[in-house]
Amino acid sequence: MKNTGFPDDRYCDVPEMNTDAFMKRALELALCGMGKTSPNPSVGAVIVRDGNIIAEGITKPCGFDHAEVTAIKAAGEAARGSEMYVTLEPCCHYGKTPPCTRAIIEAGIRRVHIPLLDPNPRVSGQGVIALKEAGVEVIFHSECAGYAADLIRPFKKYILRKRPFVIMKLAITLDGHTATEQGDSKWISNEYSRFVVHRMRSLCDGIIVGKNTIGADDPSLTVRFGDFTDEVKEAFRKSAFTISGSDNFILQSLLGKGNVFSEVRNPLRVLFGLPEYMGRTAKVFRDANYIIFETERNRQKLLDGHNDSGVLKKDYDEGRLFFLPDASSSEQVSAALDVLGQRGMLLTILEGGARLAGSFYDAGEIDQFVCFIAPKILGGGRPVMIAKSPLKMAESLQLKDASAVMLRGNLMVWGYAREFNFESF
Amino acid sequence: MKNTGFPDDRYCDVPEMNTDAFMKRALELALCGMGKTSPNPSVGAVIVRDGNIIAEGITKPCGFDHAEVTAIKAAGEAARGSEMYVTLEPCCHYGKTPPCTRAIIEAGIRRVHIPLLDPNPRVSGQGVIALKEAGVEVIFHSECAGYAADLIRPFKKYILRKRPFVIMKLAITLDGHTATEQGDSKWISNEYSRFVVHRMRSLCDGIIVGKNTIGADDPSLTVRFGDFTDEVKEAFRKSAFTISGSDNFILQSLLGKGNVFSEVRNPLRVLFGLPEYMGRTAKVFRDANYIIFETERNRQKLLDGHNDSGVLKKDYDEGRLFFLPDASSSEQVSAALDVLGQRGMLLTILEGGARLAGSFYDAGEIDQFVCFIAPKILGGGRPVMIAKSPLKMAESLQLKDASAVMLRGNLMVWGYAREFNFESF
Repeated sequence: MKNTGFPDDRYCDVPEMNTDAFMKRALELALCGMGKTSPNPSVGAVIVRDGNIIAEGITKPCGFDHAEVTAIKAAGEAARGSEMYVTLEPCCHYGKTPPCTRAIIEAGIRRVHIPLLDPNPRVSGQGVIALKEAGVEVIFHSECAGYAADLIRPFKKYILRKRPFVIMKLAITLDGHTATEQGDSKWISNEYSRFVVHRMRSLCDGIIVGKNTIGADDPSLTVRFGDFTDEVKEAFRKSAFTISGSDNFILQSLLGKGNVFSEVRNPLRVLFGLPEYMGRTAKVFRDANYIIFETERNRQKLLDGHNDSGVLKKDYDEGRLFFLPDASSSEQVSAALDVLGQRGMLLTILEGGARLAGSFYDAGEIDQFVCFIAPKILGGGRPVMIAKSPLKMAESLQLKDASAVMLRGNLMVWGYAREFNFESF
Repeated sequence: MKNTGFPDDRYCDVPEMNTDAFMKRALELALCGMGKTSPNPSVGAVIVRDGNIIAEGITKPCGFDHAEVTAIKAAGEAARGSEMYVTLEPCCHYGKTPPCTRAIIEAGIRRVHIPLLDPNPRVSGQGVIALKEAGVEVIFHSECAGYAADLIRPFKKYILRKRPFVIMKLAITLDGHTATEQGDSKWISNEYSRFVVHRMRSLCDGIIVGKNTIGADDPSLTVRFGDFTDEVKEAFRKSAFTISGSDNFILQSLLGKGNVFSEVRNPLRVLFGLPEYMGRTAKVFRDANYIIFETERNRQKLLDGHNDSGVLKKDYDEGRLFFLPDASSSEQVSAALDVLGQRGMLLTILEGGARLAGSFYDAGEIDQFVCFIAPKILGGGRPVMIAKSPLKMAESLQLKDASAVMLRGNLMVWGYAREFNFESF
């Protein structure tokens, strides 16, 4: 096997699954790329000859080679007559790079194994047809379609709606509060929960928060594994946690020992509103890796520069300050996600506060919920989300593919707002 | 072994534990008696001779033989020179029955195995001393003290404070609501959760609810295993559930296949307040197995009989209607629990509503929390408990010995307000 530059210790554990070792390896590779390929999905590919892997590939950052092409280049002439295992249907259109189907056909690969079709309407089965018409055999591995789909849920939303996938992070006490009535919330959840949050952040393109959260907590909104004790890291290295409920590929990896997420890349800090009483000393402003959404009616006040020596004017001129139409909060959320989508962001995590979360929820833009529940009773306090209440309990949103994990005392519940409907061929 | 009248299929499964088979059997027997021995704790005893169990005993209802005496009577002369395994230190005082220590000594039992001391201050080590002074060897089995303690937590509160142990049952959505803003709550939790609630009720002496809950739901407040499908019962028969966190004897049994709880005994319905708009057609009034707590200031209005043809007057005369002092809600809770304690009630379950739960919580009278969490998002709605909020999150009540179970989609979190401090010898 040719060395493709991926040291073994970068690979995280992939759960036991009823598929062959080659597809499992391709999924491992795809997982390694998560968070680094936006707006493309992270895909993994391996090339197999005489029962051995001869080359591997992971999607490179936007504009560079897809996984299939990376692997084909690594294999060279040895690709002729070989088989490829790839975690998503190969693309068949010219984007920033030529179609992968053409590369596969030209390389002389005789058989391609895939777990599911590309949700991109420009591909969605056309890639398979292109391969078959060129005489390449295509084998479906539906047994691992669920795992492969977990990896591309964000991409599916992005490609169909041009908006990033939004994970809402909640932390509540057993009696349903996220903070005391005074607003204190340090700490509901334990350090094992917070470690998982940092791992999740490292997969995201953006961290979204509202102005009250910035004002109350002055958060850094960065990925900081260095904050955690060896005891915490050791628990994850030992994969000491068991998942109940739905089996989930990303979740298992977040809880696993792999250090695939060790390359820290700080997501963009996405700030909804500016806390008026907070100057530029807030931690979120320590570098230029942020974007501020404000409402149109504040434009004049914010840009006149009297209060901040023109700092906001500079933000605006350099594309870090956007004004949303003076409309309903749902419409503002939609407009902001359009901006983030235009920036090619696939995956974001919404970390508070309650009103912003409610606006996202009411707009139908929360795609996944990750809730940390502490076995604590507060008695009274603040709600985690302020959204519209339906008339009937039966109208509540039942999470799909829900999983639960006990994290040394804290419970984590993980679930999606919608089913992933597999594109069948 | 003599047949002591306990058919084998009445015994539920006892978890794997590092203790010998005889103590395990004694614990099984104790579990069988739960809910039927108030105000005595349920105790199990076995008598062993030449490595075989020759007799067994379970605490009989109040005023009748304790487990030790039941077993000794069953063994007859064979008890002489034998060993006894019993789940609690034998009593050494005259209550409604003579002391068990005397029965043990007179029967000529040479060795007694116990897991922990009796929290009753009149016993608490004195039973062990009495046995030792009479030449009976006493062996401590600290390896199963935790399991034995789980069985007597309610008794410990009762014997020290003359008030029943209170389990608070909560059911919340993932975003912390127990009902819509309109008050609809059918159903937050699934039928597996509700089955566990009925099993819990069958261990209790009383089910406590507030008047708003009666008014809103018209609940039956009975134990009704017949309401559940074979599919639900089958899941429990197969012990299909895994506990995370603290190991717990009663919880494991509630989730287990045993039909130890199949003898349905309906707990007393304990009603805090009367829903004014609800007549005697409410389901809670279909028989006389209830008690009503009202406040003193309503005495005249309720007893004048103009509205209900003297039904409340009859309740009052027959001890089903109590008036609590016109004091704070905490003081009213204390006064009501004193009344329930005087009735010899050991274990109660508080099933709503939010204000009553808050009054119990603020009074410091919730001893255990059992929370069913549905992976649903409601958006907005009613809180599960209305109590005082502390200033700081750090002042919240951290549950002790917390466990979590996934019940086919619902999460159950089980934990205690206080540690069980073992009486060491």
